[in-house]
Amino acid sequence: MTAPATDILAIGNAIVDVIAQAEDDFLIREKIYKGAMNLIDEPRAEHLFRVMGPATVISGGSAANTAVGAARLGARAGFIGKVKTDEIGRLFTHDIRAVGVAFATAPASDGPATARSFIFVTPDGERTMNTYLGACQNLTAADIDEATVRAAGIVYLEGYLWDPPAAKEAFVKAATIAHAAGRRVALTLSDSFCVDRYRAEFLELIRRKLVDIVFANESELHSLYQTADFDTAVAEFRKEGALGVCTRSEKGSIVVTAKGVEAVEAFPIERIVDTTGAGDLFAAGFLTGLARGASYRNCALLGAMAAAEVIQHIGARPESDLRQMAEQARLL
Amino acid sequence: MTAPATDILAIGNAIVDVIAQAEDDFLIREKIYKGAMNLIDEPRAEHLFRVMGPATVISGGSAANTAVGAARLGARAGFIGKVKTDEIGRLFTHDIRAVGVAFATAPASDGPATARSFIFVTPDGERTMNTYLGACQNLTAADIDEATVRAAGIVYLEGYLWDPPAAKEAFVKAATIAHAAGRRVALTLSDSFCVDRYRAEFLELIRRKLVDIVFANESELHSLYQTADFDTAVAEFRKEGALGVCTRSEKGSIVVTAKGVEAVEAFPIERIVDTTGAGDLFAAGFLTGLARGASYRNCALLGAMAAAEVIQHIGARPESDLRQMAEQARLL
Repeated sequence: MTAPATDILAIGNAIVDVIAQAEDDFLIREKIYKGAMNLIDEPRAEHLFRVMGPATVISGGSAANTAVGAARLGARAGFIGKVKTDEIGRLFTHDIRAVGVAFATAPASDGPATARSFIFVTPDGERTMNTYLGACQNLTAADIDEATVRAAGIVYLEGYLWDPPAAKEAFVKAATIAHAAGRRVALTLSDSFCVDRYRAEFLELIRRKLVDIVFANESELHSLYQTADFDTAVAEFRKEGALGVCTRSEKGSIVVTAKGVEAVEAFPIERIVDTTGAGDLFAAGFLTGLARGASYRNCALLGAMAAAEVIQHIGARPESDLRQMAEQARLL
Repeated sequence: MTAPATDILAIGNAIVDVIAQAEDDFLIREKIYKGAMNLIDEPRAEHLFRVMGPATVISGGSAANTAVGAARLGARAGFIGKVKTDEIGRLFTHDIRAVGVAFATAPASDGPATARSFIFVTPDGERTMNTYLGACQNLTAADIDEATVRAAGIVYLEGYLWDPPAAKEAFVKAATIAHAAGRRVALTLSDSFCVDRYRAEFLELIRRKLVDIVFANESELHSLYQTADFDTAVAEFRKEGALGVCTRSEKGSIVVTAKGVEAVEAFPIERIVDTTGAGDLFAAGFLTGLARGASYRNCALLGAMAAAEVIQHIGARPESDLRQMAEQARLL
């Protein structure tokens, strides 16, 4: 096994976020499930764009945000995902490369437009996503370059990849190559409704040991084990034998192993502006720590710090120098 | 003279801002004049996009920002400007209509792309603009609808309209129609380099009484009268007989008439994030006050409040409910 050339290779849907402020009333009127990732088709996308408030456009995509966060923390990061050769696809490509993430997936030259997520941020800072997958539906196993995967210390995959039809094959191919090369594979459960859609498959991935590390928030973990009780869900997860990391908003996070459960505190913040990307940036911090051989506690603190930065401004991409912040907090 | 159906009709370049953080070093390396509006061609636009950091995309355009600010303050506002029928043009159109600004200029279906300004925000909060005019070059006198102009209490024109070749005709047509209908015409000097390019023409507009109200910042006023001394510039302006409003950043503003000069304080702020749109939002507040028959002092305070909001976040479009803020500050 050679030393990895990349610390973290993230694979996910390549999405640009179209963000607007909205009141709770708006979500109710439009029948949008608050806090969730709602999948939408093109006519619905056009409708939501027409009725939404003025927009701020910032690149997003869950795993892509994680790759960007890792790069901003100083990790060597890569990303695989599918855009189209349109204006929005060029914006996505520019933004991820501008922070040093290696991104070489061939863009689609025809077919649906680059994916976008219409994100409504309510006055409480909660984000509600409405995602048109567009060109992401063209991601296939052929986009998984074996050498790129073999060269990555950790391959990080988003559960959302189960939504576009061919992407799950890409997911399994990447995980299989990574394990054959002696690398680690991480999965984020993405969204509680996503877990609802693919519960059996996610559990199978974990039980077949195709993933070694699982990221979830409380509602995703509840959904995975179909329980409303957090301790029950955690006890169930402990039996899986994987490394689990569960984020709990202002309550911090817990790191779950077969040996036990370690609680780690959240990072102090001034005020929540937009929670988009909180979980993605937590994963960025945790994985960057892991790539450097840090303790789980230190990994979780790095994750908490990166998440704290991203929820204090609009958009899921860090605006501050995370590496410098981490050094000042003596976490790197 | 019938009562106006619109309070403020703004005419200007329809631009979407592509905003990135940058260090002063970057501006020096790229030979960009800090704080100015630099006009760029397409190859230069492509170059700057390639070398810039990750972007936030938010609609902009000086007069368009003013129309949006006025609408957010509760004024009835309209805008005339030219986009193309592309993705960026659709974003601009959506954003300005989403806040209630009447915008009906026919978009160009061919020719150059919708205009964009690559804006670099340095750590001091100063913004430096690099504008590719694109579709704005297709704005002509034919886009000035006589009934629309006649129906507006105040027509607000940006000096930047002197840059695209045919727009100055549109400017003069609009001003002439407005005066024939007994309406007021306001001009912003836009940028000190813009004043440098068109000094004689701007002075002629004022002296021919084609404009009644002039907005400027200190460096624009210095440039207009080619003096480094503020009091000299103000004394020169007083001779013109127009209403002048000069913004002075944290020193507030002054309102200049033939009768005298009134200084009005700035609005307190917590921290400057991005000064883009400060002058545009000041004009929005001032003109909204004027449309309501407020005192000049009250107009300038409304302007200061709107400017204070916009410089405390990224982008030149207000994020807060300006009308509510103004009511709480007892300015409306």
